Amino acid sequence: MTARRQFDGVRFDGGELEKVRDWLSVEEPIQININGKPFTITMRTPGDDPFLVKGLLFTEGVVTPGGLGYEFESHEDPKNPGNTIAEIQVPPIFVCDQLLEKRSLLSNASCGICGKRELDDIRVDGEPLQPERALDASRLPAMAERMRTDQSSFDHTGGCHAAALFTHEGKFLVLFEDVGRHNAVDKAIGFLLDQKQLAAADVLFVSGRISFEIVSKAFRAGIPYLAAVSAPSSLAVQMAEQCGMSVLGFCRGQRATVYSNPENVRQG
Amino acid sequence: MTARRQFDGVRFDGGELEKVRDWLSVEEPIQININGKPFTITMRTPGDDPFLVKGLLFTEGVVTPGGLGYEFESHEDPKNPGNTIAEIQVPPIFVCDQLLEKRSLLSNASCGICGKRELDDIRVDGEPLQPERALDASRLPAMAERMRTDQSSFDHTGGCHAAALFTHEGKFLVLFEDVGRHNAVDKAIGFLLDQKQLAAADVLFVSGRISFEIVSKAFRAGIPYLAAVSAPSSLAVQMAEQCGMSVLGFCRGQRATVYSNPENVRQG
Repeated sequence: MTARRQFDGVRFDGGELEKVRDWLSVEEPIQININGKPFTITMRTPGDDPFLVKGLLFTEGVVTPGGLGYEFESHEDPKNPGNTIAEIQVPPIFVCDQLLEKRSLLSNASCGICGKRELDDIRVDGEPLQPERALDASRLPAMAERMRTDQSSFDHTGGCHAAALFTHEGKFLVLFEDVGRHNAVDKAIGFLLDQKQLAAADVLFVSGRISFEIVSKAFRAGIPYLAAVSAPSSLAVQMAEQCGMSVLGFCRGQRATVYSNPENVRQG
Repeated sequence: MTARRQFDGVRFDGGELEKVRDWLSVEEPIQININGKPFTITMRTPGDDPFLVKGLLFTEGVVTPGGLGYEFESHEDPKNPGNTIAEIQVPPIFVCDQLLEKRSLLSNASCGICGKRELDDIRVDGEPLQPERALDASRLPAMAERMRTDQSSFDHTGGCHAAALFTHEGKFLVLFEDVGRHNAVDKAIGFLLDQKQLAAADVLFVSGRISFEIVSKAFRAGIPYLAAVSAPSSLAVQMAEQCGMSVLGFCRGQRATVYSNPENVRQG
């Protein structure tokens, strides 16, 4: 279970050639079986599989919260050495059968809509979030700084995403990295679920962009503020607007731009 | 069919607030029906759906080349206004039934393994590529420069990926942008398929990172050289090594590092 591994390379630099040995982010598949039945595969960076799986099953609505107290077990795939199979036993009453049967496969290294066949499947149901506390935009630079200093895998590899969770006061809760944007989010949410601390999370800060499925995952986790170093997509903003969530893009230095529900973000 | 759309925002900059109107990349779902049956949904940037769909069906091995001459038709989803449904009619002999039934859903805005349930499903079969022509690394900076100058949506939105195809001599063939990395690749490959020019493509240059599924798509398209501005993942390098392909990461300025099959890359 390593998050990064060294690879030999040849670096070209103008006319110069140099043999190098670089760290790259590890990307490996994990297959998730629910009650003995293959459910999905996700490409992920190994190391925090229990949190990844718990976060994924929760944010995709596959297992309802009552069923998340399972014992996590995993083993190497006998047919594909090095690959991992997670075995989850959940009382069927807590499993969304419709998802298992109809959509069958929901996630992978970087998305949240996999496995959905029809447009009706991609709606997120539920009441809009009503954040109790406004976000003070002046806290964002410190959050960005904290996220950046904790991105140890990125420092080595330049090749993984980060997701961090904070309280509305800017208190750091957790950060995870992964080759897949969604996995980093799932790990962070899964960790707080495991620690029974998810209710404390008000702000999800991601190192990259915000797309529809990041909004969808945060909505299921009840997190009203989404901040990103890069741009949001149109659908991320439209969905966040409907879901009572505020999307903040281009959080760089002292700057940030809020594109949805700006009334919930204040300055100072 | 617009690739970008303006959104109102409030920009915080230190203590200052400013109303802004920014361009964001459009992310919208397209549902692909094959012979009347829902096959998958992908989140994509609208505008080049015929190329996207053709590229996706080809690079995922869903429709074999003999079946790719279909007439592309699409319409608005009556139940979800604004969303698109593509209707593809392909003689069943050209459709990989196993994929339709077993994996059911393969792609989305940013991945290539969706819809796969078991680890056995993610192997890429076939003989390794044997590139006839070595790649001259000194041509990479000009390719990177050409890609960057053609990224018009990125210039406006800061929020989309690009994929460009070149000959081994560095001749530019095509570039597409999309909110999803895979979609940009599928559009570029689908366009050249449509133009019957795919055989000319030797180098796939992407604006972001190289993961397993980008290698997988390029392999199916017979493209032996993969270059990226950012990092490759471990699995991308391992798979490329086995597939006779050369992965070149961190292509910035005069620099580039080749991590697989370096004997196929020369200098000058």
